[in-house]
Amino acid sequence: MAALTVEKTAGGREYKVKDLSQADFGRMEIEIAEVEMPGLMASREEFGPKQPLKGVKITGSLHMTVQTAVLIETLTALGAQVRWCSCNIFSTQDHAAAAIARDSAAVFAWKGETLEEYWWCTERAIDWGSDGAGPDMIVDDGGDVTLLIHEGVKAEELYEKNGTLPDPSSTTVAEFRIVLSTIRESIMKNPRRFRDIAKNISGVSEETTTGVKRLYAMERSSELLFPAINVNDSVTKCKFDNLYGCRHSLPDGLMRATDVMIAGKVGVVCGYGDVGKGCAAALKNAGARVIVTEIDPICALQAVMEGFQVLTLEDCVEYGDIFVTTTGNKDIIMLKHMIRMKNNAVVCNIGHFDNEIDLVGLESHPAAKKTTIKPQTDRWVFSETGRGVILLAEGRLMNLGCGTGHPSFVMSCSFTNQVIAQLELWTERGTGKYQKKVYVLPKHLDEKVAALHLPKLGVKLTKLTEEQAAYINVPVDGPFKPAHYRY
Amino acid sequence: MAALTVEKTAGGREYKVKDLSQADFGRMEIEIAEVEMPGLMASREEFGPKQPLKGVKITGSLHMTVQTAVLIETLTALGAQVRWCSCNIFSTQDHAAAAIARDSAAVFAWKGETLEEYWWCTERAIDWGSDGAGPDMIVDDGGDVTLLIHEGVKAEELYEKNGTLPDPSSTTVAEFRIVLSTIRESIMKNPRRFRDIAKNISGVSEETTTGVKRLYAMERSSELLFPAINVNDSVTKCKFDNLYGCRHSLPDGLMRATDVMIAGKVGVVCGYGDVGKGCAAALKNAGARVIVTEIDPICALQAVMEGFQVLTLEDCVEYGDIFVTTTGNKDIIMLKHMIRMKNNAVVCNIGHFDNEIDLVGLESHPAAKKTTIKPQTDRWVFSETGRGVILLAEGRLMNLGCGTGHPSFVMSCSFTNQVIAQLELWTERGTGKYQKKVYVLPKHLDEKVAALHLPKLGVKLTKLTEEQAAYINVPVDGPFKPAHYRY
Amino acid sequence: MAALTVEKTAGGREYKVKDLSQADFGRMEIEIAEVEMPGLMASREEFGPKQPLKGVKITGSLHMTVQTAVLIETLTALGAQVRWCSCNIFSTQDHAAAAIARDSAAVFAWKGETLEEYWWCTERAIDWGSDGAGPDMIVDDGGDVTLLIHEGVKAEELYEKNGTLPDPSSTTVAEFRIVLSTIRESIMKNPRRFRDIAKNISGVSEETTTGVKRLYAMERSSELLFPAINVNDSVTKCKFDNLYGCRHSLPDGLMRATDVMIAGKVGVVCGYGDVGKGCAAALKNAGARVIVTEIDPICALQAVMEGFQVLTLEDCVEYGDIFVTTTGNKDIIMLKHMIRMKNNAVVCNIGHFDNEIDLVGLESHPAAKKTTIKPQTDRWVFSETGRGVILLAEGRLMNLGCGTGHPSFVMSCSFTNQVIAQLELWTERGTGKYQKKVYVLPKHLDEKVAALHLPKLGVKLTKLTEEQAAYINVPVDGPFKPAHYRY
Amino acid sequence: MAALTVEKTAGGREYKVKDLSQADFGRMEIEIAEVEMPGLMASREEFGPKQPLKGVKITGSLHMTVQTAVLIETLTALGAQVRWCSCNIFSTQDHAAAAIARDSAAVFAWKGETLEEYWWCTERAIDWGSDGAGPDMIVDDGGDVTLLIHEGVKAEELYEKNGTLPDPSSTTVAEFRIVLSTIRESIMKNPRRFRDIAKNISGVSEETTTGVKRLYAMERSSELLFPAINVNDSVTKCKFDNLYGCRHSLPDGLMRATDVMIAGKVGVVCGYGDVGKGCAAALKNAGARVIVTEIDPICALQAVMEGFQVLTLEDCVEYGDIFVTTTGNKDIIMLKHMIRMKNNAVVCNIGHFDNEIDLVGLESHPAAKKTTIKPQTDRWVFSETGRGVILLAEGRLMNLGCGTGHPSFVMSCSFTNQVIAQLELWTERGTGKYQKKVYVLPKHLDEKVAALHLPKLGVKLTKLTEEQAAYINVPVDGPFKPAHYRY
Repeated sequence: MAALTVEKTAGGREYKVKDLSQADFGRMEIEIAEVEMPGLMASREEFGPKQPLKGVKITGSLHMTVQTAVLIETLTALGAQVRWCSCNIFSTQDHAAAAIARDSAAVFAWKGETLEEYWWCTERAIDWGSDGAGPDMIVDDGGDVTLLIHEGVKAEELYEKNGTLPDPSSTTVAEFRIVLSTIRESIMKNPRRFRDIAKNISGVSEETTTGVKRLYAMERSSELLFPAINVNDSVTKCKFDNLYGCRHSLPDGLMRATDVMIAGKVGVVCGYGDVGKGCAAALKNAGARVIVTEIDPICALQAVMEGFQVLTLEDCVEYGDIFVTTTGNKDIIMLKHMIRMKNNAVVCNIGHFDNEIDLVGLESHPAAKKTTIKPQTDRWVFSETGRGVILLAEGRLMNLGCGTGHPSFVMSCSFTNQVIAQLELWTERGTGKYQKKVYVLPKHLDEKVAALHLPKLGVKLTKLTEEQAAYINVPVDGPFKPAHYRY
Repeated sequence: MAALTVEKTAGGREYKVKDLSQADFGRMEIEIAEVEMPGLMASREEFGPKQPLKGVKITGSLHMTVQTAVLIETLTALGAQVRWCSCNIFSTQDHAAAAIARDSAAVFAWKGETLEEYWWCTERAIDWGSDGAGPDMIVDDGGDVTLLIHEGVKAEELYEKNGTLPDPSSTTVAEFRIVLSTIRESIMKNPRRFRDIAKNISGVSEETTTGVKRLYAMERSSELLFPAINVNDSVTKCKFDNLYGCRHSLPDGLMRATDVMIAGKVGVVCGYGDVGKGCAAALKNAGARVIVTEIDPICALQAVMEGFQVLTLEDCVEYGDIFVTTTGNKDIIMLKHMIRMKNNAVVCNIGHFDNEIDLVGLESHPAAKKTTIKPQTDRWVFSETGRGVILLAEGRLMNLGCGTGHPSFVMSCSFTNQVIAQLELWTERGTGKYQKKVYVLPKHLDEKVAALHLPKLGVKLTKLTEEQAAYINVPVDGPFKPAHYRY
Repeated sequence: MAALTVEKTAGGREYKVKDLSQADFGRMEIEIAEVEMPGLMASREEFGPKQPLKGVKITGSLHMTVQTAVLIETLTALGAQVRWCSCNIFSTQDHAAAAIARDSAAVFAWKGETLEEYWWCTERAIDWGSDGAGPDMIVDDGGDVTLLIHEGVKAEELYEKNGTLPDPSSTTVAEFRIVLSTIRESIMKNPRRFRDIAKNISGVSEETTTGVKRLYAMERSSELLFPAINVNDSVTKCKFDNLYGCRHSLPDGLMRATDVMIAGKVGVVCGYGDVGKGCAAALKNAGARVIVTEIDPICALQAVMEGFQVLTLEDCVEYGDIFVTTTGNKDIIMLKHMIRMKNNAVVCNIGHFDNEIDLVGLESHPAAKKTTIKPQTDRWVFSETGRGVILLAEGRLMNLGCGTGHPSFVMSCSFTNQVIAQLELWTERGTGKYQKKVYVLPKHLDEKVAALHLPKLGVKLTKLTEEQAAYINVPVDGPFKPAHYRY
Repeated sequence: MAALTVEKTAGGREYKVKDLSQADFGRMEIEIAEVEMPGLMASREEFGPKQPLKGVKITGSLHMTVQTAVLIETLTALGAQVRWCSCNIFSTQDHAAAAIARDSAAVFAWKGETLEEYWWCTERAIDWGSDGAGPDMIVDDGGDVTLLIHEGVKAEELYEKNGTLPDPSSTTVAEFRIVLSTIRESIMKNPRRFRDIAKNISGVSEETTTGVKRLYAMERSSELLFPAINVNDSVTKCKFDNLYGCRHSLPDGLMRATDVMIAGKVGVVCGYGDVGKGCAAALKNAGARVIVTEIDPICALQAVMEGFQVLTLEDCVEYGDIFVTTTGNKDIIMLKHMIRMKNNAVVCNIGHFDNEIDLVGLESHPAAKKTTIKPQTDRWVFSETGRGVILLAEGRLMNLGCGTGHPSFVMSCSFTNQVIAQLELWTERGTGKYQKKVYVLPKHLDEKVAALHLPKLGVKLTKLTEEQAAYINVPVDGPFKPAHYRY
């Protein structure tokens, strides 16, 4: 990696983006997005005057898009100072990054980072000063900032105990090797840094299923170092962003990357969780025949009730036209599958991590040759068959790599949860309400997030009478459902 | 009410049905249903040989349909003795009742009971002998058997305390007046009967949202007298029966009752829970434009994301063509609404109780005149406007009153949960596993119910590898999701 | 056949129906249907005062349903005298027949006629007096009245030429044998009857694809004896009744006959014309996976663009759950197919004639045994496999045999075309406008039919400005499209 | 306009494109498109060896996209020489133009032409040599080449008659002014040029509704100078490209231009022809509530049967979120409408010409200010309200201006019709089969186009038996439908 240098705005704020001159374009798109993000704008109105996050240092690691820009500026409107990186090497919108860098926060992100650059950006985002100070709170997506700090603390403790430094060569996972290098260098400079950082953190609010799984695992093993709010499992997040966001952004990404006609094709969707449901619906609505693969019999039964055929990948790999992984698991579409596919079958992933598709297998297969059609759209040809597959975004989140991610409106639901979570964590710091555990926002806040988004869509809610509320045993103003309600 | 007399089969089993000669027809439909109810048939295969319910006395109060017949005969195949009544005055399929009465269990049910007859049947179902013996377990739907026993116990205790007998004239609710009369007469015969019954009961498994709400209220107030399993909130019940069942049976009932063309019409669905989601989807799929009314902002936002307009009933009452209540609440469509509706607007309810539609208001309105087109299809004309509305099933469950209810396959999911719940309650009686509380079946049993229904639909599940299972931190064979997962 | 006798009303009008006492019930349903049939009611208003069909004798052969009753009474409201029979042995709604017989027209129809009874009814409908007088005009559906008259004329001419009488034993087609017997007896009584009848007829308006095909064949061979208006190919008929009518009535018939859950099943729709499109959409919307069979590559390509798989019946016969024939062709689902089907696969036809399904093969197969579940729902078991199929309506139109056919609103579109066609034929008789050929109604009348149905559905049409009309070169008030436009 | 100069390849072929260095990228996308265009590739295989278009000079005016590149190279594979321009100033894909210019044909097209440049390109495309020679045949889309030649001939005749030259100042339509200038200059150079060109032309095949309307008008007024094949009204064109193409490309264009979330929004589709049907379906499928505006009562009734509300634009202009014009008419969304719209309502056109939306009104309104967000995405703010609308592609075809147009597969259907039409016109030149009239391809060729596209989608067609074919009176191999069949 060529040495990266932090730049500074005229006002002295640090940043590293692709091209600051795109800031005006970014600002225009941010302004348009604001009209589509009523929850965030309402939060500015409601909370802004009291400045509840006055001076709070927030580090965010979340796709640096136009929508995220509106989130960042909502946090700053509430008084926060913000440093930001993207949580995916392909997902930054450079004009949005430029606008934020120029106007609002310290941004370290560009579309098409290398893995080394990615972790450099992540480290910049948590570095709040030459003395190694860290953030007061974290906004995380996938959990990489949380991971870095937790791994850092573990390594420091081991180092303190027996002088062992992290050994990058101990792992074959390319990305984790970089994490270990980063920590190793940090320890050599300041062997207490991550522990100081962790101690100062009031909490993290985590955006996505993958990161949440990591948090629950840490909670179970009592390794969690600060409170966490699981934003992903707010109903107004997982049943909206994951479902309706993907229903929108999967075809968007497919069209931008390949222009392939979806109608008449066979789409194969691996996984029928919220993301899979959105993807399957999108392909069906576009005129494809959709086959679902599932491990969970309940989700499989849901799929079949919606008219989808449920098969294993082995059954349909030879006649599928478009393959999408949505599982959150690993090793879903392997080299052996891709070799058997039709010529120019499209293969892509919309799950958080890139290990659903066997890119490693492709890259190490001697008979596979890559041609880049355009950025994020590669054709891999197998010399043994002469056929090729079209792989999107190198197996990373195709909707962000090949498109612009989820649209503003649905992100407003998710991000209003983030704002509320940050407010909760900060306001309740030191009150004992949040321990070193994982929490979901209470239902009345979830309902509030929804309510903030209804007027924009012309919705008129019905009001319960006192008698009706008593009859079904809920408050007149909600919450309206028991905790276990599934929506 | 004319005196009702219990009849007996040649073998001496009690019953009261419309026409025993329909038993052959009932049997044929039961046999066809068996092919569509793989979960129940698999339960017979798996558990039948061991006779785990040998001699157990089960009282059921649940729509006496063909599908319920297969449930009853699954319980008897596992060794149980069964007495049954319907939980709705219109929902019995007389041929199914006849077949069961002749072949398998004591049945007290017919289509078109009066309220007095309904409660007579209910009391017959819990009467297991001249000594006032009650059942070992209850299968309940809406909770009327549970209610009767709990109210009975309360009344007996009050009577023992101060000699007060229940006073039917103390209530204006016609149905509750009958309940009080029933209990009053029981106390005068045997002032300990309901307490003896309650003490003997190992538990109840409750089928539906409405009954579950009652149970949780009793749990909260510590009044619950025996353990309860909430079958409704098994995923394989509420997300299938409530949703896909209603998606099927709403148009079925509408067509049988009115033959009205749904395409091109404006459908108004009050409530967007699981039942409302199924109803709205059905009307949309049939070509209607659908308007949803909701109190809950989250459900409202879901509706609008699916393309439905969300308004209040007041907004659309004048141009809606078909109105369906699905709320589980009361006082949804009132007289004042019906007077404003278009001529021949169809008004119906698919929620458990009949108080969603203001039948009382209609009946007491001097200017409203009823003409019965055919059973369960009445036209009410308002002399002040000359317009009329078509009211289905007198405001009771229209899919059971005007049609045959949910189809076998989806009821197999629900009823397999019932069988498993009954097995749990019985097998674990006295082990302390189930207290006087409300329980949901564990996820692995929920997943098992789903799995039993997949082969019939040609589904091929994917198997996790050990590595994948470890990666997402679940057992290879499930359960695959955390408890809070919403599907 | 037991001798059938014509009955007479108090007023002396002839009829033969199942049960005249159902007339009140029929009347109520007719009144409800009137609200749903705005085109017919508007025709009464517009044309009634001038009595354009004053004294005209119209014979109709068209499913004697509630909707047809509104058609008949529209014709009588315009002054016509009407005699009517059904065009299908299972399609009569007996209460509708009773109401019409009592109040409006001579009806000869009941649900469940034998073939002999069917043709007896048909002959009654064309018999306008003891002198053998026939009708002035015909409303036909499938062309049986037209066929009878044309075959009659041919036979009379042959008889006149060489004394040959029709020989019923010359054909193996059971139904045609009865036609020949009927004509034979007629010739023996009056060897000029059919020729006299034909000469008097001003024209026929034909309802359906099948009848239209027959008419065009007769036109091509110059055998057509009077003008014919092809109502089927009015856009407001074929693209509405055939498509949206079947989308409604296929699931209706399936549910009434079998209560089978459609969701999750594999539906196989043979033929993807207008009827097939409606059926495939209905099954898909109900949650089935749908496979289409087609001979026409264009229709096949349409099917696949809508997400349907297109296979041959051989490919999918073993895993389909519900099979529907819509082809208008013969020999679609044969015995050999049914033997291979899953146990309790549902087999039905929604095309005009019953020869799409091999009932003959079933009946003659020694190892096939029929059990009637209920009228129009038979289970045929094959002893060689132990499996059975459920055959609806003996292979005849299942939506009319097992349900009540298409709903009123869409039939109002079709039947308003019929009324306009009858008016055209009568008004223009003798003007030379209509020769012995097949005609389609002009587009402005087609558009008028549509326009009459819009206010009921709340539609507000946009008006062209003069400039816009000139720009696209159409009159301001239409017609708006060229003749070849496909909609 | 700065003077434009024709460039030449090393081989001497003329061209004018944006950037020839994009040819490699264009070539890769062309190769991917070939896999998706089975009809064109099959045409190369079937006809290529005989070189039926050997040496034929073809001028094309049709969006210069990747798909068109495959059409051009199919024509050259059959022996033709080709000169090409785009038929829309925004629709060229520059990399496709580069690849064709380098490898196959003379191309004059780039994305973002001025109107002057557009007509310069058009004139280059018809100029086959210094002696003013014209093409042998035309491929036209919208009819601009045909218009130029017909207007040229008219002007030459007038000039010959009385020396009058075309007067650009005689029209206020900016574009027609340029046409007149072009012709004026041509006459001054060579007053017989357009007549010579016209005389030499064997025919034109026209792609789209708009161009076809012009042709029929010329046929009616006997002004047509050469035979025309109406490709638009092949079923495999208008019911596929117009419908399924737009269903795909409308959301694609919306997403690329605005990233707006479609779900939950109110979409207003002006016109419910094939294009409108595709657009309405796309918005509905994406979760929008859709309102249709229509002038034709039949199309309006179709819309309402599909669940769409039908209103006038005036009714819904204030609450619509996304407005799409599809009418083929003019003056649909006017300034007065746009002023009343919600802030950031999206306004776009997918019809052929840009006069559906009142750009002229916007540009001349003093209080309207334009901000360009990015190319083809402008925000127009009205100072009197502070609200703005987002106008796509300056009112031109938004799917080509903001996206990449229709996907390859559906264009393969359309373009295979073009190839067959060109073959017909050339093979039958001088045989008298085609007069100076407008023709539609015969049904067997239409069916052939469909058939060529089925294998790619895994379709298996059913074959008629001889008996079945006889029964429905069609040849075993088709054509299967009468000419008036609507599909």
